[in-house]
Amino acid sequence: MSSGGMTGAAPGSIMTTEIDEQPAVLARLLREQAGEISRIGAEIARRDHRVVLFAARGTSDHAALYAKYLVEVHLALPAGLVSPSTSTVYGARPDLRGVLYIAVSQSGGSPDLVDALVAARSCGATTVAVTNTVASELARAAEFVVDFQAGPELAVAATKTYTAELLALYLLMAPLSAELSAADAVSLAEAVAATLEHTDAASAVAARYRFATRLVTTARGFSYATAREGALKLMETSYLGAQAFSGADLLHGPLAMIDADTPVIAVATPGRGGAAMTPVLTALRGRGADLVLVGEKDDLPAGTPSSSGLPVHTRGIREELHPVLEILPLQRLALRLSLERGENPDAPRGLRKVTETW
Amino acid sequence: MSSGGMTGAAPGSIMTTEIDEQPAVLARLLREQAGEISRIGAEIARRDHRVVLFAARGTSDHAALYAKYLVEVHLALPAGLVSPSTSTVYGARPDLRGVLYIAVSQSGGSPDLVDALVAARSCGATTVAVTNTVASELARAAEFVVDFQAGPELAVAATKTYTAELLALYLLMAPLSAELSAADAVSLAEAVAATLEHTDAASAVAARYRFATRLVTTARGFSYATAREGALKLMETSYLGAQAFSGADLLHGPLAMIDADTPVIAVATPGRGGAAMTPVLTALRGRGADLVLVGEKDDLPAGTPSSSGLPVHTRGIREELHPVLEILPLQRLALRLSLERGENPDAPRGLRKVTETW
Repeated sequence: MSSGGMTGAAPGSIMTTEIDEQPAVLARLLREQAGEISRIGAEIARRDHRVVLFAARGTSDHAALYAKYLVEVHLALPAGLVSPSTSTVYGARPDLRGVLYIAVSQSGGSPDLVDALVAARSCGATTVAVTNTVASELARAAEFVVDFQAGPELAVAATKTYTAELLALYLLMAPLSAELSAADAVSLAEAVAATLEHTDAASAVAARYRFATRLVTTARGFSYATAREGALKLMETSYLGAQAFSGADLLHGPLAMIDADTPVIAVATPGRGGAAMTPVLTALRGRGADLVLVGEKDDLPAGTPSSSGLPVHTRGIREELHPVLEILPLQRLALRLSLERGENPDAPRGLRKVTETW
Repeated sequence: MSSGGMTGAAPGSIMTTEIDEQPAVLARLLREQAGEISRIGAEIARRDHRVVLFAARGTSDHAALYAKYLVEVHLALPAGLVSPSTSTVYGARPDLRGVLYIAVSQSGGSPDLVDALVAARSCGATTVAVTNTVASELARAAEFVVDFQAGPELAVAATKTYTAELLALYLLMAPLSAELSAADAVSLAEAVAATLEHTDAASAVAARYRFATRLVTTARGFSYATAREGALKLMETSYLGAQAFSGADLLHGPLAMIDADTPVIAVATPGRGGAAMTPVLTALRGRGADLVLVGEKDDLPAGTPSSSGLPVHTRGIREELHPVLEILPLQRLALRLSLERGENPDAPRGLRKVTETW
């Protein structure tokens, strides 16, 4: 790649560094923060919550979506993603006593998230900020702060803060469910490192989709967050129309637009979510979709990198933590595809790092 | 248009009929069903609910998203859209006592929605089926049934059942909030009829986007459901990649993929949601987006149909009911665009009317 002009840095060098930093970031989170996060989780568990709400935008909204599945499946509580505009635009002041309200934000600086959390706290909710920035308005406004310490994120497309958010949310939820355990995450950083070694597969898929103008991602269960976040990464860096669907929703209409000219990236790692993708994959193959699977490396068919899909190392990692692994080849694909197209993923058009919405 | 082959019907004739049927469907719903729906709402209001959950897929999921805003803004309760897979795939059995659980489905026949509602009822929720099919599994499984009586829907792309679902959900919620009133909907059918008269505008936009391969829709607040449903209609009938974003989320990343080659349909009718779109429209114009506004007809700039946007008649209709009007020109656009492309919107590729997912 050519040099990036005045900055002197090669295009994509910042995003590359932050993608590759993830094993170290997650290892540090497990080593230095897991105890404090477990303590916060245990303190929250002593209160009697009747529902869990999440507030987030962009990449962090996908981490929140992941955590919503954790709550529904393992905390046996109803959960929802709040629409911040209902309080910031419409002035809603619901009764939130007994509600656990978790805002997820890398910067902690989105004014609408801060305002919505302040409103939720004044309405009686237990408020938690899950953030990379302890010295933020959001952290100051919340009763509890989960600091996931991913270090400064300089690339506009979030990568390491997403996987750190996923892990931090898992660790926060673990004390709230007898079915989850922080101990199950101990070997996660190693699985992340092993997964990141498969750079060729992402490069091969990037070359294949050099001239694609749109693309679909799909998954079910915990991995649905992966499909959403993968699509966002591709949009942010490569300017293609990438759409994410739950496998179930895909069969309800959008399947009509899929044909041999539509690349589809389906996430199907071992577990119940992956198993529920079986009829979806059959339907996609029936429509002749150009299908790439994100799956356990030992399960993917042998062959050239692009035909064998995007491998991840899930052995010994429980299904609930697979999303931390699944997003990695999609981050790498977004980076490589952007470079293939002569773009600079470190400086996407039209984006600022902290977006201010009210 | 040429004849539709063996059926003898012109392509799009079924969808055209069902779009044009909407004033009559909504007038009948107001005349014959509003009383019963209000009675159900009042009975539900006598119980003490702490949270409202919605379950739906496809088009009905957008009606549920609309109702979620009604709950958050006007019922002062937390709300969420459930992920049916958490019970049907992962076997979650949360404590749902005090939860109002509303499933929305035209057919009432999606097995996963039926199973999820049965699970929710066994977990203690008050269950409601909002459906077009009283003789369905879903209706039989629910404690309360809201029958919106839109008549048989033959087109695969749902139109009249969507607006009927929106109105039925508004009528169901009205007794649960002092801020809402069924009486505010009395002139809705007339506004729908007036809005449907603007066929030229949709045809002009369809001609303009004949060769577009992707398109973005955006809105905030109650109208966000319109953006989502409009995108689905375009995908279902015209096979283009249509993506919906809340105006706030659009500024958090996806803005990067928008340029002069990206058609953007922004919904901004009078009210707080439309007002909150102002900075979004500014950012879109700054990126040179090819922008079409869905807006109150008196507010759109004069000019040729495509430059003046897609007009709706909102005068005298409260903001909470605008989504019933806003979707109409987008339904028409989906129909016209499909025909422009030589497709038959009555028989989209790869779709069945009832999709079975587990």
